[in-house]
Amino acid sequence: MMVWNGGPETLAPLLHSRVRWVQIGSAGIENWLASGIIDDSRTWMCGTAIYSEPVAEHAMALILAGRRRLAECARATGWDPTLVGLPLHGCVVLIVGAGGIGTALIRMLAPFGATSVAVTRSAREVANATRSASADALTELWGEADIVVLAAPATSASHRIVNARTLAAMREHVLLVNVARGALVDTDALVDALRHDRVGGAALDATDPEPLPAGHPLWTDPRVLITPHTANPVALRTELLARRVTENVQAIVGGRTPASIIEPARGY
Amino acid sequence: MMVWNGGPETLAPLLHSRVRWVQIGSAGIENWLASGIIDDSRTWMCGTAIYSEPVAEHAMALILAGRRRLAECARATGWDPTLVGLPLHGCVVLIVGAGGIGTALIRMLAPFGATSVAVTRSAREVANATRSASADALTELWGEADIVVLAAPATSASHRIVNARTLAAMREHVLLVNVARGALVDTDALVDALRHDRVGGAALDATDPEPLPAGHPLWTDPRVLITPHTANPVALRTELLARRVTENVQAIVGGRTPASIIEPARGY
Repeated sequence: MMVWNGGPETLAPLLHSRVRWVQIGSAGIENWLASGIIDDSRTWMCGTAIYSEPVAEHAMALILAGRRRLAECARATGWDPTLVGLPLHGCVVLIVGAGGIGTALIRMLAPFGATSVAVTRSAREVANATRSASADALTELWGEADIVVLAAPATSASHRIVNARTLAAMREHVLLVNVARGALVDTDALVDALRHDRVGGAALDATDPEPLPAGHPLWTDPRVLITPHTANPVALRTELLARRVTENVQAIVGGRTPASIIEPARGY
Repeated sequence: MMVWNGGPETLAPLLHSRVRWVQIGSAGIENWLASGIIDDSRTWMCGTAIYSEPVAEHAMALILAGRRRLAECARATGWDPTLVGLPLHGCVVLIVGAGGIGTALIRMLAPFGATSVAVTRSAREVANATRSASADALTELWGEADIVVLAAPATSASHRIVNARTLAAMREHVLLVNVARGALVDTDALVDALRHDRVGGAALDATDPEPLPAGHPLWTDPRVLITPHTANPVALRTELLARRVTENVQAIVGGRTPASIIEPARGY
């Protein structure tokens, strides 16, 4: 078994034909699939759900910052009593992609008295969610959310799932939170929706393009907070990957199926 | 019974001698006690614990923003990948004043895997806290906290409880969060500690003086986030006060003791 915490380009020349198992550190693997290195000659395992807790924690930080208008407070250089936020309590939080991150997020949301609607491709019952739904139901669900959290892998199905049409279906005060990949959002459509006050705000840990260029209107919109793809802080990454490697080696040695085997056909 | 959501000066000329019960909306009552209007001729009830949930929610927003460096991200006008935060997971959170706000905060902290140390005057066991301690134990506890949250009433005992001496006892990376009253912090000592990198940062919903004047160094320190005393958003205030009035009227009519009777001797 080989453990690799870099990208596909640097691994290719090093990959011996007799390596049967490869554990990569990344959770999102769209660039691995695009590189063509992932084939059926061995078993590939990715970092899905390894980093769920820190990423869900970052989503909570962005949700609360958005509701409480903390970006505007941070930019203020004097006392402005009009910078009054709104509570998270009582909000409907639509979680698009309720895998590891979404499941952890639902647990963190519970004590705040928020309603969580968990959307998965399979519409399976997500633990502790107020309601579970399929991606097909999104057409109806966009309009029910106070907060939309994107936590789905970047696939062809999720590509620009937030676009002009779906933004138009959302409530005017909606807060959009992206802790997944920039490709899930049509950035120009988001800028346009903000310009016309058709959304309340956005808190984005991932953008398209990434990095977002200096001078882009999202940098200075008072309703927008951008973090530089830091939902999963370095401080925890190695420790969490090591834990997964240990578990997967034990599974393989014990004849069990390791976690997060990549299935190229579904895209994650 | 009279319900009053203003200050003591405007109530005084309206207060009929036969009013036996007065419910005021404020949770912090130091200015009511100072005004001298509160006496033994009737029962006074304040807003303690009415607004615990929204204020605890704001404390969570400030804690997560501080750990995740959201104020610096909000001020950035370009992509800066060095703005990497730290997780809340695994932190020791010292809660000074574990009344209604502290108790709600402990519940919200639980799913994040943080350790909560609850300090009260009486050292009573606080529900769900990892550890409960008395104010006397603070001498030792300052140095154990990654995050210090001030949630105590403003009394002579809590006045400037965060000062040059106690700041010096804290860890260098400590995040100070104040959702109580500005008087609990010696502002000049905090500025000095920040200047010498002896604390990690501060997130303050209350300041001394309040409002903090334009040009004050706390406005522009990258490690500091200030919200303008908005922990308890207007959106919920009236609804929550109305709920308490209902409960207290039912208690009085039913011959029970209403909640949050003011005891001038203890200061809250």
